Amino acid sequence: MTQFDPATLRYDVNGLIPCIAQQEGTGEVLMMAWMNADSVARTLESGRVTYWSRSRQAFWVKGETSGHVQELVDLRVDCDRDCLLAVVRQTGPACHTNRRVCFYTSVTSGEEVELMAPE
Amino acid sequence: MTQFDPATLRYDVNGLIPCIAQQEGTGEVLMMAWMNADSVARTLESGRVTYWSRSRQAFWVKGETSGHVQELVDLRVDCDRDCLLAVVRQTGPACHTNRRVCFYTSVTSGEEVELMAPE
Repeated sequence: MTQFDPATLRYDVNGLIPCIAQQEGTGEVLMMAWMNADSVARTLESGRVTYWSRSRQAFWVKGETSGHVQELVDLRVDCDRDCLLAVVRQTGPACHTNRRVCFYTSVTSGEEVELMAPE
Repeated sequence: MTQFDPATLRYDVNGLIPCIAQQEGTGEVLMMAWMNADSVARTLESGRVTYWSRSRQAFWVKGETSGHVQELVDLRVDCDRDCLLAVVRQTGPACHTNRRVCFYTSVTSGEEVELMAPE
């Protein structure tokens, strides 16, 4: 087996890689946010999913303020090494709108349909 | 309800938005790829998930060559309008390595562990 080194992932021009958070068990896709190499390392070390906030240009320990933390169950790398999947145990809603997931708007019908209310 | 217009999504500097594909029913996260506004429109019109290939700079009707198509069940927009979730019916493996999903490598243990063999 190969030792994992976050430096071997493929980051974009800003040094970031997208990370999808999925709830363990239910399989719900909760959200997508960005990580840099240090976020990846911190997430693995701490077991707390830690993104990189593009707006604040700072580490973003998910739930640090809201309490809506993501406990890491498994971190997976995709075939091209340019996307991550974090399987997590989400406490409370994942979305800043207080909804369970960020993907609460369906557009398939040609109209925007809200699938989920805030908790 | 609001009429949905792909132009109202938030694209990156290259005019692209990430789209996560999730299998209907099982909830498996199959892959992540990119769309531009025209890909989004084509996906909705055709019911066939159509990405934008960054390497080929061309539309990429998933499965057009391999037969491993993605039939659209639902397309969802996230709270920030900068990420999409396509709920799909995947025919065959989603990954170009012939694995069911692209996220087949776990790195949680500090080693790279392959979770899944090609089909």
